[in-house]
Amino acid sequence: MKLISDRNPVVVNLTNYLAMNFGANALLAIGASPIMSFYDKEMEDLVGIADALVINIGCLDDAQIAGMRVAAAAAQRLGKPWVLDPVGVGASAARTETAVELITKYHPTIVRCNASEIMVLHGTACKTRGVDSAEPVEKARACAREFAAQHGCVVAVSGAVDYITDGVREAHCDKGSPLMAKVTTMGCCASAVCAAFAAVLPPFEAAAGAMELMGTAGEAAASRSCGTGSLAVNFIDELSLVP
Amino acid sequence: MKLISDRNPVVVNLTNYLAMNFGANALLAIGASPIMSFYDKEMEDLVGIADALVINIGCLDDAQIAGMRVAAAAAQRLGKPWVLDPVGVGASAARTETAVELITKYHPTIVRCNASEIMVLHGTACKTRGVDSAEPVEKARACAREFAAQHGCVVAVSGAVDYITDGVREAHCDKGSPLMAKVTTMGCCASAVCAAFAAVLPPFEAAAGAMELMGTAGEAAASRSCGTGSLAVNFIDELSLVP
Amino acid sequence: MKLISDRNPVVVNLTNYLAMNFGANALLAIGASPIMSFYDKEMEDLVGIADALVINIGCLDDAQIAGMRVAAAAAQRLGKPWVLDPVGVGASAARTETAVELITKYHPTIVRCNASEIMVLHGTACKTRGVDSAEPVEKARACAREFAAQHGCVVAVSGAVDYITDGVREAHCDKGSPLMAKVTTMGCCASAVCAAFAAVLPPFEAAAGAMELMGTAGEAAASRSCGTGSLAVNFIDELSLVP
Repeated sequence: MKLISDRNPVVVNLTNYLAMNFGANALLAIGASPIMSFYDKEMEDLVGIADALVINIGCLDDAQIAGMRVAAAAAQRLGKPWVLDPVGVGASAARTETAVELITKYHPTIVRCNASEIMVLHGTACKTRGVDSAEPVEKARACAREFAAQHGCVVAVSGAVDYITDGVREAHCDKGSPLMAKVTTMGCCASAVCAAFAAVLPPFEAAAGAMELMGTAGEAAASRSCGTGSLAVNFIDELSLVP
Repeated sequence: MKLISDRNPVVVNLTNYLAMNFGANALLAIGASPIMSFYDKEMEDLVGIADALVINIGCLDDAQIAGMRVAAAAAQRLGKPWVLDPVGVGASAARTETAVELITKYHPTIVRCNASEIMVLHGTACKTRGVDSAEPVEKARACAREFAAQHGCVVAVSGAVDYITDGVREAHCDKGSPLMAKVTTMGCCASAVCAAFAAVLPPFEAAAGAMELMGTAGEAAASRSCGTGSLAVNFIDELSLVP
Repeated sequence: MKLISDRNPVVVNLTNYLAMNFGANALLAIGASPIMSFYDKEMEDLVGIADALVINIGCLDDAQIAGMRVAAAAAQRLGKPWVLDPVGVGASAARTETAVELITKYHPTIVRCNASEIMVLHGTACKTRGVDSAEPVEKARACAREFAAQHGCVVAVSGAVDYITDGVREAHCDKGSPLMAKVTTMGCCASAVCAAFAAVLPPFEAAAGAMELMGTAGEAAASRSCGTGSLAVNFIDELSLVP
């Protein structure tokens, strides 16, 4: 899409192993230039040439966590927008500790997550079942707004109706398809797309625009898919066709 | 499929990097909730919330092996079903040692493998060529039966005709397509599906049901695919369409 | 394809996480037998049974670099052909140092790269933007020829018109589609296909044949794809249909 491809922003993705290929194809499809890496020894260099950064905690290990610290610190120091995707926070102590450390020390520009995840980060009791949300977005709105205000960031909560807030402003997106939740790393992909938008727009507009694009492309793809395998393929096609 | 989706079991996958995305999509398609991780420091937590576990040795490294030990020990202690996929055992000493250690110390519920792999584990001389089987399933049946009886587990051997045994009972599945062997991680996917079934059925019935589903979906997908790329996509579609 | 499948060469891929699945499917589609691993403790064993090796620096970390050293040394000692894909060399010091070490110590048979990458390796000032080339192939031809002559290897530069040289001979391939650059790891896939060809042909003929196959399959796939998602799928289909 012209908004992104005119700038062809370099988006550095420190993300989980599942999400790398799908996310890179999504970023290429919309006109961004993805780099996938988590190597702590090159993160200074890569964030230096990046227009935006994504950190996704979906598959933690010591090497990834080391890379996350260097990358987030560099993004903060250089004033580059960065998106945190706290995948499965609450499912293990390691995920919760890592997400909390990244938020409190390095202040993400945008937190893109599901309802359970923002409730965990906010400290509200909620149901979690692994990495899939067990709560509706409606229940998470107040948490998201408070969290955004407290941390000075934008929060984008994915669900049947996506909710985006900076603590004051609010946006909603009811586009998409329930089938999207059955394609793995669709949420991680939304976080990567948020980063590409954050390279060319202010954070709130970026998150709202990214979620709108995800919903539009997902809805169009679902309308011509006969299952979740073709949905993933058609979704990338739809992204690549946006003028 | 209703059998799985009614329970929506959490399946923790400690698997190789290639298999993560395809396996997660297969598990989502049938109604399970996959978590992909190999981080030793969160394996206690994750196996604690899991209904079943898969350990796949397709891409070993020290970090993965550390995670495997914690995960398998937790599954054994908590009495949770776990599936071992001994990818390429025999191709390197590291693979053989890791598989043997996991079997003898932590007693997998189901071993899902190909003919060469069960022959290696059984100690029978056989041809191996990397990670693809060089032997027909027929030749491996006696090995599988003896191995299952000796280790008190179920063995499911994939091939032209799949063979499932608990050392006494036997099941066969002649569904599927030879093209399935040309889609990478199709066997790893079978192991993940076995784990989802093992969360809702006893081990022998689980392995037989999983191989039947793999064969049925693969055969249907192959009948409308013009190559191995579309076969992978259509296979996930077929899984997602099972009532 | 018969040229490859008659030998069914084992190709060991020490590659980045994004490229593993797509590359393995491409190798299976043309009749090779891929193994994906980067574990230093099994690299001696795996290269011992390999007919060719690929080393791709797309997602570096300490574990991968350790594996690369053992694998490249084994390939050199055993006289097995190996392909280096110096993804994003120049984007970070770590990538440049790793690529230079592998080239000077272990002498790759084929270097498969883009225009920016060969210019960086040659020491020529050029524009780089992350992992995507910022220079046309034409500008890199002299660099490629000199580099090939100096290092006694074949260089294959991907672009609108691919350029292959051993320092004396030259080949060109103008097949393909500009959309191929929008599918992630298409270049990594070309490197894997180069390795499969290098298992059955001399290096220059291998690289030229591999790039020709990539271009032919990519062009056919693009002609029937409605976006970059389906292009990736159709590309594997096309590879699997070559007689």
